[in-house]
Amino acid sequence: MIHPEFRRDPLHNTWVVFAPERQRRPNDFAPAVLQAGSLDPFVEGNERLTPLEVYAIRQEKSKPNEPGWQVRVVPNRYPAMRIEGKLEATPVGLYDHMTGIGAHEVIIETPRGDIATEDLPVPAIAQIFSTYRERILDLEKDHRFQHIYIFKNVGPSAGASLTHAHSQLVALPLVPPFVEGKLARAREHYIVKQRSLFSDILHTECTDGSRLVAENDGYVLFCPYASRFPFEMSIFPKRHHPDFVSCTPNELHDLAEILRFALQRLNEVLEKPGYNLLLHTAPLRRPHTERFDSTRYDYSWHLEIAPRFNALAGFEIGLGSYINTVYPEEAARFLRGEARS
Amino acid sequence: MIHPEFRRDPLHNTWVVFAPERQRRPNDFAPAVLQAGSLDPFVEGNERLTPLEVYAIRQEKSKPNEPGWQVRVVPNRYPAMRIEGKLEATPVGLYDHMTGIGAHEVIIETPRGDIATEDLPVPAIAQIFSTYRERILDLEKDHRFQHIYIFKNVGPSAGASLTHAHSQLVALPLVPPFVEGKLARAREHYIVKQRSLFSDILHTECTDGSRLVAENDGYVLFCPYASRFPFEMSIFPKRHHPDFVSCTPNELHDLAEILRFALQRLNEVLEKPGYNLLLHTAPLRRPHTERFDSTRYDYSWHLEIAPRFNALAGFEIGLGSYINTVYPEEAARFLRGEARS
Repeated sequence: MIHPEFRRDPLHNTWVVFAPERQRRPNDFAPAVLQAGSLDPFVEGNERLTPLEVYAIRQEKSKPNEPGWQVRVVPNRYPAMRIEGKLEATPVGLYDHMTGIGAHEVIIETPRGDIATEDLPVPAIAQIFSTYRERILDLEKDHRFQHIYIFKNVGPSAGASLTHAHSQLVALPLVPPFVEGKLARAREHYIVKQRSLFSDILHTECTDGSRLVAENDGYVLFCPYASRFPFEMSIFPKRHHPDFVSCTPNELHDLAEILRFALQRLNEVLEKPGYNLLLHTAPLRRPHTERFDSTRYDYSWHLEIAPRFNALAGFEIGLGSYINTVYPEEAARFLRGEARS
Repeated sequence: MIHPEFRRDPLHNTWVVFAPERQRRPNDFAPAVLQAGSLDPFVEGNERLTPLEVYAIRQEKSKPNEPGWQVRVVPNRYPAMRIEGKLEATPVGLYDHMTGIGAHEVIIETPRGDIATEDLPVPAIAQIFSTYRERILDLEKDHRFQHIYIFKNVGPSAGASLTHAHSQLVALPLVPPFVEGKLARAREHYIVKQRSLFSDILHTECTDGSRLVAENDGYVLFCPYASRFPFEMSIFPKRHHPDFVSCTPNELHDLAEILRFALQRLNEVLEKPGYNLLLHTAPLRRPHTERFDSTRYDYSWHLEIAPRFNALAGFEIGLGSYINTVYPEEAARFLRGEARS
């Protein structure tokens, strides 16, 4: 059996996860695709089709791996990384190598296969976020892990292989350089200006207003100034905190409300496009933040919604830059309902 | 009319090109797609369907914008940037803005619409590379431009909108941070080790051999240690030079030969997958390199081939990391013809 690995080369500085088990056959180089429809492994009643659950929100008398749940978390059947084993980081000549240790879980957001996240009631969406929080709290106890990232692929253009509403969680033994870059820029901003970059972006967006889509008690929903994708949206919490797990039940309810609104508006304006949902929270162990007091953080968790209309092409792959055909000010007008298509 | 713009935000540090003219209608948020088949604007005889040519390799008595050419370069009909106008870079509050000045050209690689690049004879492919060289030499005279990048999208999975064999050239008024990162790591490596990172990678790959696919007089073809995509390949020149335009006619011939081999092997092993071809050459104006003598460069131009099987999903978009299902050692065995699918 070939084990998964992390690899990095010094030219690209990108950690790549090699996950050979995601191939079905040696000559099949596309990742394994799960079947939808009657073979939906995530639907209530089909619990036997998934690995054993690691967490669920369930009716009081129901048993694990049986019906009676609202949200259910299982290990990914085709994991990019493996939870068992020793974490070893070694040089390989010029290159860098790490054993492919990590968690790769699937958060099944609803027992029903025929309903989209945004069509669930707000309390049900809040339960999904509460599940994210519980899984992070559990996995962060494992000292092999440095960073937890939760994301969602919806539709083929966004890389989804199954229609049943679900998110994925990865717990990684490293902090990707891309994430380190965001942290470093936020820290630098704080050191120079003595203000959080996240506060400054919120202040700018709320003052300017042209890219603002909505807000509620806890959050601001806006199209970022340098949106990489048409109709990209960010959700920033008004109470900044590095860690998503700091959210209170009330804050998770507000988050569910504003995400539901954002996705419903996206569907209305663009006829249910594929999208990625990206939850960015601070790495698990951060020595640098100790110097700041607990009310003044240099980094904040945040949520991004990236609608996906086109394949990323040679321009994006090779330059790390993006071509976007829609200004965020125009997207925001559509999303606010002020422009008609 | 809405003009194109470059925008950057301090959290992501990504320059995004806003190109509203690539939309066909205000409510059509996908880039304009050209028609193939009988309306192929790139086929010989249809020259009137493209903007006026800026360069061509032609039969002696043929006239511009008429038949009789082997390779033809025209401005992109749906340009991401515009060549006319004044380059202005300004802050917009927290954010960064630049007018969308740049060149966006299409290199039509053959007069025929029914032939792939790798099915052309080697001298015809060498003419395409010679055309790249001529266009860079012409455009680098424009002091508004900092970086020229040439890429190719083949197949829908790689973002292609037209089947006729063609490449795209962009001349940018900035060096993308992603490219600056590669340059900085190569420079750091040189300063510390007094050897080029590119020489060290070549030395490693030629010594190890497990990821080597082929070599000829001028080039080494290998699968990178941390390949981001299944069957990704790199072509490194044996004679390192920062600038692609330094290539001699002989070197362009060797490059055509090894690229043709690489693409033909890819087709044989994987049944003509979509792919991106990425030509990385040094930025046009680099103050830092003066300190090195002309035979010892810290950076080298190089070519990457990125086969594209799946949409980039939430993992890649949010982390800048990649999940790859095929080890490069396995890919190289297939590409060398030692393994059978």
